[in-house]
Amino acid sequence: MTDAATNMRLKLPITCFILQIILIILFGAVVKYDHETDAKAWHNMTESGHSNYDNDFYYRYPSFQDVHVMIFVGFGFLMTFLQRYGFSSVGFNFVIAALALQWATLMQGFLHGLHGGKIEIGVESMINADFCTGSVLISFGAVLGKTSPVQLLIMAMFEVTLFAVNEFILLSALGAKDAGGSMTIHTFGAYFGLMVTRILYRPNLDKSKHKNSSVYHSDLFAMIGTLYLWMFWPSFNSAITAHGDDQHRTALNTYYSLAACTLSTYAMSSLTAHDGKLDMVHIQNAALAGGVAAGTAGEMMLTPFGSMIVGFLAGIISVLGFKYLSPILEEKLKIQDTCGVHNLHGMPGVLGAIVGAVTAALATRDIYGDGLKDVFPDVAKGDVEASFQGVRQAISLAVTLGIALLGGLIVGFILKLPVFGAPPDTLCFEDDVYWEVSATKCCNV
Amino acid sequence: MTDAATNMRLKLPITCFILQIILIILFGAVVKYDHETDAKAWHNMTESGHSNYDNDFYYRYPSFQDVHVMIFVGFGFLMTFLQRYGFSSVGFNFVIAALALQWATLMQGFLHGLHGGKIEIGVESMINADFCTGSVLISFGAVLGKTSPVQLLIMAMFEVTLFAVNEFILLSALGAKDAGGSMTIHTFGAYFGLMVTRILYRPNLDKSKHKNSSVYHSDLFAMIGTLYLWMFWPSFNSAITAHGDDQHRTALNTYYSLAACTLSTYAMSSLTAHDGKLDMVHIQNAALAGGVAAGTAGEMMLTPFGSMIVGFLAGIISVLGFKYLSPILEEKLKIQDTCGVHNLHGMPGVLGAIVGAVTAALATRDIYGDGLKDVFPDVAKGDVEASFQGVRQAISLAVTLGIALLGGLIVGFILKLPVFGAPPDTLCFEDDVYWEVSATKCCNV
Amino acid sequence: MTDAATNMRLKLPITCFILQIILIILFGAVVKYDHETDAKAWHNMTESGHSNYDNDFYYRYPSFQDVHVMIFVGFGFLMTFLQRYGFSSVGFNFVIAALALQWATLMQGFLHGLHGGKIEIGVESMINADFCTGSVLISFGAVLGKTSPVQLLIMAMFEVTLFAVNEFILLSALGAKDAGGSMTIHTFGAYFGLMVTRILYRPNLDKSKHKNSSVYHSDLFAMIGTLYLWMFWPSFNSAITAHGDDQHRTALNTYYSLAACTLSTYAMSSLTAHDGKLDMVHIQNAALAGGVAAGTAGEMMLTPFGSMIVGFLAGIISVLGFKYLSPILEEKLKIQDTCGVHNLHGMPGVLGAIVGAVTAALATRDIYGDGLKDVFPDVAKGDVEASFQGVRQAISLAVTLGIALLGGLIVGFILKLPVFGAPPDTLCFEDDVYWEVSATKCCNV
Repeated sequence: MTDAATNMRLKLPITCFILQIILIILFGAVVKYDHETDAKAWHNMTESGHSNYDNDFYYRYPSFQDVHVMIFVGFGFLMTFLQRYGFSSVGFNFVIAALALQWATLMQGFLHGLHGGKIEIGVESMINADFCTGSVLISFGAVLGKTSPVQLLIMAMFEVTLFAVNEFILLSALGAKDAGGSMTIHTFGAYFGLMVTRILYRPNLDKSKHKNSSVYHSDLFAMIGTLYLWMFWPSFNSAITAHGDDQHRTALNTYYSLAACTLSTYAMSSLTAHDGKLDMVHIQNAALAGGVAAGTAGEMMLTPFGSMIVGFLAGIISVLGFKYLSPILEEKLKIQDTCGVHNLHGMPGVLGAIVGAVTAALATRDIYGDGLKDVFPDVAKGDVEASFQGVRQAISLAVTLGIALLGGLIVGFILKLPVFGAPPDTLCFEDDVYWEVSATKCCNV
Repeated sequence: MTDAATNMRLKLPITCFILQIILIILFGAVVKYDHETDAKAWHNMTESGHSNYDNDFYYRYPSFQDVHVMIFVGFGFLMTFLQRYGFSSVGFNFVIAALALQWATLMQGFLHGLHGGKIEIGVESMINADFCTGSVLISFGAVLGKTSPVQLLIMAMFEVTLFAVNEFILLSALGAKDAGGSMTIHTFGAYFGLMVTRILYRPNLDKSKHKNSSVYHSDLFAMIGTLYLWMFWPSFNSAITAHGDDQHRTALNTYYSLAACTLSTYAMSSLTAHDGKLDMVHIQNAALAGGVAAGTAGEMMLTPFGSMIVGFLAGIISVLGFKYLSPILEEKLKIQDTCGVHNLHGMPGVLGAIVGAVTAALATRDIYGDGLKDVFPDVAKGDVEASFQGVRQAISLAVTLGIALLGGLIVGFILKLPVFGAPPDTLCFEDDVYWEVSATKCCNV
Repeated sequence: MTDAATNMRLKLPITCFILQIILIILFGAVVKYDHETDAKAWHNMTESGHSNYDNDFYYRYPSFQDVHVMIFVGFGFLMTFLQRYGFSSVGFNFVIAALALQWATLMQGFLHGLHGGKIEIGVESMINADFCTGSVLISFGAVLGKTSPVQLLIMAMFEVTLFAVNEFILLSALGAKDAGGSMTIHTFGAYFGLMVTRILYRPNLDKSKHKNSSVYHSDLFAMIGTLYLWMFWPSFNSAITAHGDDQHRTALNTYYSLAACTLSTYAMSSLTAHDGKLDMVHIQNAALAGGVAAGTAGEMMLTPFGSMIVGFLAGIISVLGFKYLSPILEEKLKIQDTCGVHNLHGMPGVLGAIVGAVTAALATRDIYGDGLKDVFPDVAKGDVEASFQGVRQAISLAVTLGIALLGGLIVGFILKLPVFGAPPDTLCFEDDVYWEVSATKCCNV
């Protein structure tokens, strides 16, 4: 089933080898251990009073591992819902992520500030690299089934770069807060991916329509992805917040946001079906929207009450998106969004950004006490008013949308180059194009 | 395949929306961050000498996440062994748990003591809420395949309430110890669920008998659930014990109890089959009984030796229960226990309670040193003798059985109301009643 | 399908019961809590200034749980790739591991040094026991599908014993460093298993050839195993290194080694296929070689750059091994290596040992500062030169290979005894010999 165009025998190895060798060289040139990872530097610190439990590893590594599971198992298995695309969903997710996290280390390192000309890395940079990777995987969801692995690796390189630029503008230049990445990760990844899939529009995709659906067991595999994303989202949103109450509060807010979101998702899924039957697509995706929507405000004093309202709304919006908006986007705007990332990451990301802006604008020292300096350092220092922090957050959303859409536009056109070996319309959503698939059918099992 | 009675289009959304909105309102009225989650309160503490690593988040959050995985993936996938009920097993588990953890936060908060009229929440309350949820999911296992999602949500609300009352009586009024919940979680959940399924007895359930069994891959999915429960049970039992040696010892005791239980489970499974072949039902369930049975005494100075004996016995009892007792319960007592929760949670829970009572009665200051105040504070203070602590534990078991059975009786009759849309006898153990199921069969995979 | 020889009804229960009862008796006789798990001992320490967060539980338990997942889910599901051997892969993995970790506690305890005639246990000994278990599971991979559960339990007992002896020689007698076990775990487990499978050579194994392959969903189940091994390998390699920078650095080195390995694996998998299609066998296995190869040097100042080179080479070697070396080993040397453990653990383990020797030889106080005493205590004390530490590491590799091959030879002959109930050539790779398998085929799902 492979013809010359989609044969990866040269394209994929060359792409992987060149990119990996460049990465190794760049790592050799500019990357070093940070002061908590370096033997000499850390022991100099412990001699001057630090204890081993002060090492950031103990504050963040458990959260890092949860995030890591979300990236590789969560995103990977969430996309296995397609009946004949499980190898590609998990397998391309795997290789894209392995590339993106390396490149992200470099891009984020350059932009977050060099130390004597070097990028210093440790557990926090690993989490940030995984976060950036998550954004790429969201975009992957939009183009799932319609792209070659080479296209995906190229997309990852460009998207990581743009992600780092956008993140730098938001967090460093604009002074916005976005610990769980409602804007930097979800909104950016979703709208970038939606624009790419728009540019890669396939008018004859209905030739593969019979494969663009699930079977019984593929939906169960996808639920593995869903549940790991759902369970570990509190770790995701709290992974890089300040130590102490900030990590604690963010995890708690996200926990309740997700719980409320799950209830509203089940309600809406049943309500919007003429026979009241639950739809696995909604359960697999919309129930997660509460995590996305708590990505910006989760570290703030949102209160459990506020978190639950946010999650409740996110679930409703997300199911409505799957049910009514996605078909319109495909028919009218020619946006073929395989996984519905607009409903899981796009709209809930925008909701999260807005909630973050409002919550920031309402911050007072009376509520935060001395904790204000952890959440809103510029407000605590008196440099800006809380209301202006809210404006910063709103501007950040606009910037993110702009960079994502413009970036997706350019990258989409790059990915259209025929050299990358995209599958023909008849072979979309089909593992057999890029994978050795056993001839044995499951019936003999 | 849906008729009017089982159509969930109005019933499920109304139930979910009303319950969730009530929860949001109550959270708004009475729930606040505790002093380790609140920005102001925590920073007041750090200024008076606390360090960030004193925050309970760092002591308990990794355990919380392990418990969380057990609740959503462990219980959810354990029940996917049925050939046509995987969506419901994972999906109803998901929504019940998301509801129960919210309601549990309130019920446990009310009963554990208000702070200025408010319920204060943090990582420990999240763990307790997940624990209570676990109890509901055990009961779900007893009625699996025979109930509508609305019935399950109603059951969850009542059961959480009764759980919190029972827990309050045991831990606060009686001063019993039950960190891993042999009594509060497992015994309570099992006997409550057994009584509910007794009341919901279906004399014609054999009409669905061909669906009440596993297929090859459904058994593999179930093993995902089994293994996550097994691996993380040390975290479950140690999640809310005192800091330091208590958490450490509890995890270790549970680890060895489970290992010994696994060996005796394999031995008994083979021994009780006429051709010596292992039975997946035993492996999936009985191998976990060692965790249940170490739930009360795990935090005590049970010794690895004692833990292994407990686990060894639990595995034997559990397999014997599956093999010989369950058929009797169904035929004689009309208890249709789909997952065999009596064998995994009921009998091993009672065993765990007894072991806990005996171990408590044998406690001495010579063995525990100053650690006595963490495990048995009343004994350490000299308020009671160790032997009386053992009596308290035994009374607690009796109270738990009483409340579980009586509560299950009442709730069972409530759930019999026809309005909740239970499936007919011919459509039990069948996803298609409540879920959109793809027409595509797996043979084309 | 079971005849008298493979009927486990007496053999398996007797083996399990006798071994477990012996273990319980030995634990009762010689095992006690260590000073961080024992109530009295720990409270004596806290009174003399220790705080609860000094308890090793908080430094190591999250890593322990990650390792635990690798052992039970990682190894277990990795081997479910076979179409008809999923129950055995997960289920035998489960029981072998549960036995091995208990026996390993004793063997390692004896050899690591008794305390007043007793073995003291805690979280570190639990990690070490899981590590030793991992080695047994690697050997299981070599003989997968061709052995009875009784053979596997017997093999586990012998292998654990030899593992502990080899580990003692390397770490205590020779003073080698091998935190992540490139030598002690991977090289040992692989070459031991390869020798066992050589001795158990079946000239007529082609009678089961049609079952010695995967189906679509079995490959997806295997990817669950792969990803958990991949994600948690940083925890594996860092689980027992020194606190602080050591754990931090080891996790980071492993993370980048694995990422680079993944890219080179995809490149090589595509390059070595005539149609450029990716092979699931390579992705499932070779992508993990970077973790194996970073097992010795991961805790050293390998630098991210060095780690990536190691991972990059490991992926290449591993795919080449699967593609070209495994068929030769089978045809010429009669080594039937079901899972290709030579390619995933054998060669990458040797590579890791060599990298470790070289990195050790290059260690200087200038690079490590005072951290030298954590990584190379003998070099820090001035007892040996760094170059001699490198020699020690190289000798350790040779010793490991010798003990593994000799041990595998002897144990292989023991396992050939007909009493253990090995399956006939026609029924290899078939669950039905040892498991109740539902008659229902998946087609009705």
